[in-house]
Amino acid sequence: MTAGAQVGTLPDVDEEVLRARAYLMRVAEPPAPRLGHLVALLGPVETAERVRGGADLGRHVESEVAGRRGIDRAAADLEAARALGGRLLVPEDPGWPAVAFAAFGRPDLQGSPDWVAPLGLWVRGPGSLAEQADGAHRSVAVVGSRAATGYGRWVARDWSASLAEEGLAVVSGAAHGVDGEAHRGCLAVGGATVAVLACGIERAYPAAHARLLESISARGAVVSEYPVGAIPARHRFLVRNRLIAALATGTLVVEAGVRSGAARTAAAARELGRVVMAVPGPVTSALSVGSHQLARQPWAGVVGSVADVLADIGPVGTLTEAPPRPARPLDGLSTPAARVHGALRGHVATTASALARESGVDPRRVPAALDELAAAGLVVPDGDRGWCRPV
Amino acid sequence: MTAGAQVGTLPDVDEEVLRARAYLMRVAEPPAPRLGHLVALLGPVETAERVRGGADLGRHVESEVAGRRGIDRAAADLEAARALGGRLLVPEDPGWPAVAFAAFGRPDLQGSPDWVAPLGLWVRGPGSLAEQADGAHRSVAVVGSRAATGYGRWVARDWSASLAEEGLAVVSGAAHGVDGEAHRGCLAVGGATVAVLACGIERAYPAAHARLLESISARGAVVSEYPVGAIPARHRFLVRNRLIAALATGTLVVEAGVRSGAARTAAAARELGRVVMAVPGPVTSALSVGSHQLARQPWAGVVGSVADVLADIGPVGTLTEAPPRPARPLDGLSTPAARVHGALRGHVATTASALARESGVDPRRVPAALDELAAAGLVVPDGDRGWCRPV
Repeated sequence: MTAGAQVGTLPDVDEEVLRARAYLMRVAEPPAPRLGHLVALLGPVETAERVRGGADLGRHVESEVAGRRGIDRAAADLEAARALGGRLLVPEDPGWPAVAFAAFGRPDLQGSPDWVAPLGLWVRGPGSLAEQADGAHRSVAVVGSRAATGYGRWVARDWSASLAEEGLAVVSGAAHGVDGEAHRGCLAVGGATVAVLACGIERAYPAAHARLLESISARGAVVSEYPVGAIPARHRFLVRNRLIAALATGTLVVEAGVRSGAARTAAAARELGRVVMAVPGPVTSALSVGSHQLARQPWAGVVGSVADVLADIGPVGTLTEAPPRPARPLDGLSTPAARVHGALRGHVATTASALARESGVDPRRVPAALDELAAAGLVVPDGDRGWCRPV
Repeated sequence: MTAGAQVGTLPDVDEEVLRARAYLMRVAEPPAPRLGHLVALLGPVETAERVRGGADLGRHVESEVAGRRGIDRAAADLEAARALGGRLLVPEDPGWPAVAFAAFGRPDLQGSPDWVAPLGLWVRGPGSLAEQADGAHRSVAVVGSRAATGYGRWVARDWSASLAEEGLAVVSGAAHGVDGEAHRGCLAVGGATVAVLACGIERAYPAAHARLLESISARGAVVSEYPVGAIPARHRFLVRNRLIAALATGTLVVEAGVRSGAARTAAAARELGRVVMAVPGPVTSALSVGSHQLARQPWAGVVGSVADVLADIGPVGTLTEAPPRPARPLDGLSTPAARVHGALRGHVATTASALARESGVDPRRVPAALDELAAAGLVVPDGDRGWCRPV
């Protein structure tokens, strides 16, 4: 039995499903929320057939698949992954980290394209994502600056090793600086670590981490929603960060600039209702400024030790209970108002009758819903052209 | 006009009142809550007459004044202070920091001996305590370890200078380490600084700070509730810390051990409903452990910059609004239970009938009140000797 076969697809996932998802994952650039909804509605096989066959899918789905629908490399992509000792993990697989992505379906996150679960995950390595993200298990996303100081690198490595010794998995992004040290610390004590990439799982990015990525795929898991060959385009890092946040019980920011990728991952973790923790540092260090800003947020906290992280995450072996979700502007809206709000098209004016049509709210109730939204500062009139979201 | 006369007693405070308070301040060791209540009831002059004359004052007040009631050095103490260029500031003086001590009268703090306002304050220096602690003014208590690291000393000095430049007064305890640097930073930019001592205002303690204390008394204020000649006995530092917390809008802990004096000052500030802030530092530094523990408390916060301190304290020129007081163990008790709790004498057993007598609660209601307190873990039976507070 080869290493590839060992970690290959479980027999209970149909090859047709794998091919359909592999095809769609190459066609649509994540996140592709409309395609995600279509797959939820029709299933991957029928969706793939319709996309491949050129069926009219409505303009929203069209915009997500038009560019690459003619490219069908599903069989080759699956083969390439298997050749690397990897596989395509799909929601139909019992090993799919369903709990990790459960929050993506929350009604208040439904409107945002950031919160679409991946159509599948290309995985290289023996690590189980379900074990690390679901149920009674615990995992920590350890993220921070690529240009971390010696202090930040030390904390990332030392704490990740201690967390791994406590039985937690460490999730990160394999970047220079904090990410790499987090993986290394975990590996050093034989712990499980997951690297989520913004490119294909065959790619060593950054190049200096080629050996590190080999070690992770030998003992943990290298994961991506991008097919083999995908390049680490800039926008993909931000898209990828939602997966890092989702695959962990909590996110630990070691050193970060104010508007860094780590800060984005922390914000994603917050949206998902996960624990967000910041490692303090000297106030004289520019790289701790972002950590301290984060620690001052009511939805985040400061951790001064591994014991603090464990206290905040909750002990391994108990079920995760999501902390109360912070109040959001849409909380407390009536159902019609919430639905009308969801039908607003950003800053392009929409008429009241169009809003009624889009939202399915009784047209006679739309004016009251608009009044409610206006009072909450969630909608503004745009002359006589209709209504739009405030700037 | 001498410097002493310049900062001497305002003409509108009666010399008799000053003498009465000066006498009582030497007689009773702070905090003397029973004597404080008697002064509130009878006024300082009549109280002093009764104490001096040996009247029966009830055993509680007796226990606070018995040891030194025969010592009447009021005139000499006032003269000694004046000779130092100082004076006795009393509640009858318009310059008394009444707002600073207002919270001491809060019903939930009444039972505790920690929360008795001083009978007066011996003050050396031109600084106005009322300006620094009251109304629209802002002041920050900067406290921390005597054994502060270079980092902690730098933060104390640099931030105190910046806070002084923003118009805030810096209050501290004149100790080695953080305290001294806080005063120095403030003085370096010509700012107002207040040193609250645990001994007489004539005393240079620590001796190495003799020149620093001279500078503070020349441009700010050196303050104590202890008369000239009082030595810095160990217990007086803890008693003194409540004054540091009370005289400041917020307390900033720079570096502190877990059960340090600074942590006590922060706890006192919390009790008073003041802002409590912790300066983060490297997680690798033993002296930042206490700061990080503090920062994790729901009633405290982390500050990464002077801007954060200003944001938390509120801008100079706006009226202080006390943050919502954190829940305390005594919150939610019925009135009889709260009164019975107040009548408990620490760890010495008190019988139910004595508790009824002391608390004024109907003896028939005392058993139910004790049940309520026992359920809240606030009282334990002591064999057949009665009831006492839990260890």
